[in-house]
Amino acid sequence: MNYGMVARILGNLLLIEALVLAVPLIVSMLYGELAAAAFAWSLVITAAVGFVLKGIEPRSESIKAREGLLIVTLGWIAAAVFGALPFVFAGAAPSFIDALFEATSGLTTTGATVLEDVEALPKGILFWRSFTHWLGGMGILVFTLALLPAIGVGGMQIYKAEAPGPTADKLVPRLANTAKLLYTVYVGITIVAVLSLVLTGIPLFDSVLLGFGTVGTGGFTPYNTTVGRAGGATAAWALSLLMVLAGVNFSLYYELWRRRWQAVRVNTELKVYLGAVLISTALIALNLSISSHYGVGESVRQALFHVSSIMTTTGYAAADYGQWPAFSQAVLFLLLFVGGSAGSTAGGIKVIRWLVAAKSVGREIRRMLHSQALVPVTINGRAVPQETVAGITSFIVLYLFLFSAGTLCVALSGTDLVTSASAVALSLGNVGVGFGLVGPSGSFGFFSGSVKALLVFLMLVGRLELFTMLILLSPSFWREA
Amino acid sequence: MNYGMVARILGNLLLIEALVLAVPLIVSMLYGELAAAAFAWSLVITAAVGFVLKGIEPRSESIKAREGLLIVTLGWIAAAVFGALPFVFAGAAPSFIDALFEATSGLTTTGATVLEDVEALPKGILFWRSFTHWLGGMGILVFTLALLPAIGVGGMQIYKAEAPGPTADKLVPRLANTAKLLYTVYVGITIVAVLSLVLTGIPLFDSVLLGFGTVGTGGFTPYNTTVGRAGGATAAWALSLLMVLAGVNFSLYYELWRRRWQAVRVNTELKVYLGAVLISTALIALNLSISSHYGVGESVRQALFHVSSIMTTTGYAAADYGQWPAFSQAVLFLLLFVGGSAGSTAGGIKVIRWLVAAKSVGREIRRMLHSQALVPVTINGRAVPQETVAGITSFIVLYLFLFSAGTLCVALSGTDLVTSASAVALSLGNVGVGFGLVGPSGSFGFFSGSVKALLVFLMLVGRLELFTMLILLSPSFWREA
Repeated sequence: MNYGMVARILGNLLLIEALVLAVPLIVSMLYGELAAAAFAWSLVITAAVGFVLKGIEPRSESIKAREGLLIVTLGWIAAAVFGALPFVFAGAAPSFIDALFEATSGLTTTGATVLEDVEALPKGILFWRSFTHWLGGMGILVFTLALLPAIGVGGMQIYKAEAPGPTADKLVPRLANTAKLLYTVYVGITIVAVLSLVLTGIPLFDSVLLGFGTVGTGGFTPYNTTVGRAGGATAAWALSLLMVLAGVNFSLYYELWRRRWQAVRVNTELKVYLGAVLISTALIALNLSISSHYGVGESVRQALFHVSSIMTTTGYAAADYGQWPAFSQAVLFLLLFVGGSAGSTAGGIKVIRWLVAAKSVGREIRRMLHSQALVPVTINGRAVPQETVAGITSFIVLYLFLFSAGTLCVALSGTDLVTSASAVALSLGNVGVGFGLVGPSGSFGFFSGSVKALLVFLMLVGRLELFTMLILLSPSFWREA
Repeated sequence: MNYGMVARILGNLLLIEALVLAVPLIVSMLYGELAAAAFAWSLVITAAVGFVLKGIEPRSESIKAREGLLIVTLGWIAAAVFGALPFVFAGAAPSFIDALFEATSGLTTTGATVLEDVEALPKGILFWRSFTHWLGGMGILVFTLALLPAIGVGGMQIYKAEAPGPTADKLVPRLANTAKLLYTVYVGITIVAVLSLVLTGIPLFDSVLLGFGTVGTGGFTPYNTTVGRAGGATAAWALSLLMVLAGVNFSLYYELWRRRWQAVRVNTELKVYLGAVLISTALIALNLSISSHYGVGESVRQALFHVSSIMTTTGYAAADYGQWPAFSQAVLFLLLFVGGSAGSTAGGIKVIRWLVAAKSVGREIRRMLHSQALVPVTINGRAVPQETVAGITSFIVLYLFLFSAGTLCVALSGTDLVTSASAVALSLGNVGVGFGLVGPSGSFGFFSGSVKALLVFLMLVGRLELFTMLILLSPSFWREA
């Protein structure tokens, strides 16, 4: 294990985080808030630790898969720990575990909050909460790679370990350029999002925060009742559309920009993703209007908003869907396990994995009829390697194990089954909103410190797609090859 | 498709069912009940249809995988439909769908009941309900194979399509002898079970019925409150032990009888199965005694009883565990998805599948560290073929799809989420008892006819291990090769 390189890259990451902390510092100063001091202290501490780590001289510059996994895991933990400092110093969170929960929930784009009175927070803190969504959405190490192409050697190992989805493709031959391209698309979509929200009449500051939360599929807002004042009809349509767009594989936007229409048209995951949004919306809208819960127009709007919110793992709520008919609730509960597209900012299991899993079921049926050997599963007309199919079904099984074990641990604290299962599912899937006590009007403040720590762990495990982080718990990881 | 052979074997099956109906007919006559007429009419009708089908002359005697799947599926549907007749003729069920639900629940060893006042039923009907558990437990087509070795040709196709577990092994070279051996073990265990229940002070008639329900891992009892008068401490210990024994692969009893200790000692599924029973029992017992729900002794007894009941998919309940602490409920809910061992009378996903799935997760972790190709997963020191591993993970994914789709359909009737999810999980897993309105004190009578029909379908799909039945819905099944 090349610990020198691990330390150096973590140092770089922390220096970038210190740089990033200057943004909420400036916001806080512009609003003349005392919280500015909290950001200044956080910035200095983060930068100091970053400098020390960066100063460590590695024996060699080579990075293998092992180092990549360690860097990504430690990088996320470090980013969350130092990102929690402003909440502690500004007195926004009652304890360090609460601050860590809030920072992890932000960076992993979960959007679950332990804070009760969000609207009373300083503007700088509100900005930082939402900004962590934006930073974590595309991946904090992709961000590092975009800013520091010098890491170059072994960067692909880091890129693969952090990438959302079963496979990580480079858009262009050089990795640093891929990272830059992804961020260019990301910044572009964010600007479009903020402008359209301003056009719906939401104030600029709120629009910027909602833009971060939406494009990063996070879920934090500057309001006490999730979408709060942004819950009007026009804003709801705009947010729904933006969430759906943020759940699409970002490389498809690059293809669109390059006018490679064909690449977009044949993309099966895109079709299934949009199909799932439309079908779920239609089912809930029908259920809501037939049961006279809302009028027809309101039913469609509420259905689309919450389907987009949960499926893209954003976690906004504009209504207490816990009062909806059982069928609508069941659809939303299942969507907690679906997730968006690979290569988007959305978390969860992701559509492509379910697609491959469903095709492996179809293959099994053909195999029983014709007693054939294993024929390859195809996606977009291309065969998926047998190893990838096995990796995807293992991922789903591991997800179930973690969901079950997590639910048992939370239930041990005495929390009811629906709340326990929801809290674990929404943490693991980085959704942020669920059912029972963690429903649309709930907060995570009531959980004990140990449950909060468990949920922090699950948010990170989910964001890093299970294996990247869990592999560090395997003894063979630490045995030298 | 060789429809002639399909009809002939179904005819044989119905003739055997007619023969079997003579047993409750005699019971009813011994008790001088009017219900005897219901059994006589059912017997005559079943025999008549059986003779007509048996008389069809097939073009050839060859059976392929396709015919095997069709015979097993139609065989189970026919057995349930004709097995429902006594409930209709005796006026025990309010409608045909209720009678079909009861017969299917019996044959599939689910044990969910739509009848409200079980204790008011004639003895013959009570006997028939429990006897269907015993018949269905080992497989009604294995029973046919044991009695009619003449089917011989292609019998292996039928045996494989009905076998509980991912692979079907013959104990001895000739299939008919394997079927006979399995039934010898089965009869032996049943006799031991009935005798031990009589020794605990339960009346003979009740002991016989509980013996059928326990060894067949069914769950029907002659009482209104599931285990009713048999809920005393000694009986509970005896039933727990018998349920655990019924959840073991029956071929291991044959190995024991042949004194092949080594085959039993190295059996990984057995160790994991017993380990899961012990760990789940310990967790619940600790939770119940720490939360002062019961005293220590009572906690252990209640924990073991309900863990055995749900894990072996029997479905007895001796207490309203819906009132237990959330953690204990969560453990029991998860056990709805575990099931017993392959080759036992227990339903569910089964321990061996989870074991292979867990090992495929472990393999994935090793593969990420060493970038290897797919190394085989091993069980009992032997490599599991790659096709079997893929089949098992596909099975689990399909199980999740069916569970999710089923829950949505039941929730559409307006039933709450916990009840809907429980009803589907307990039908698909052939467990018989769940949470919410279908908890220990619940009945399935309140569901609409269409929900009952859906649950009947799910019980059959679950008993036939998903693919056997669902494959008939695939268009390529019906296209001639």
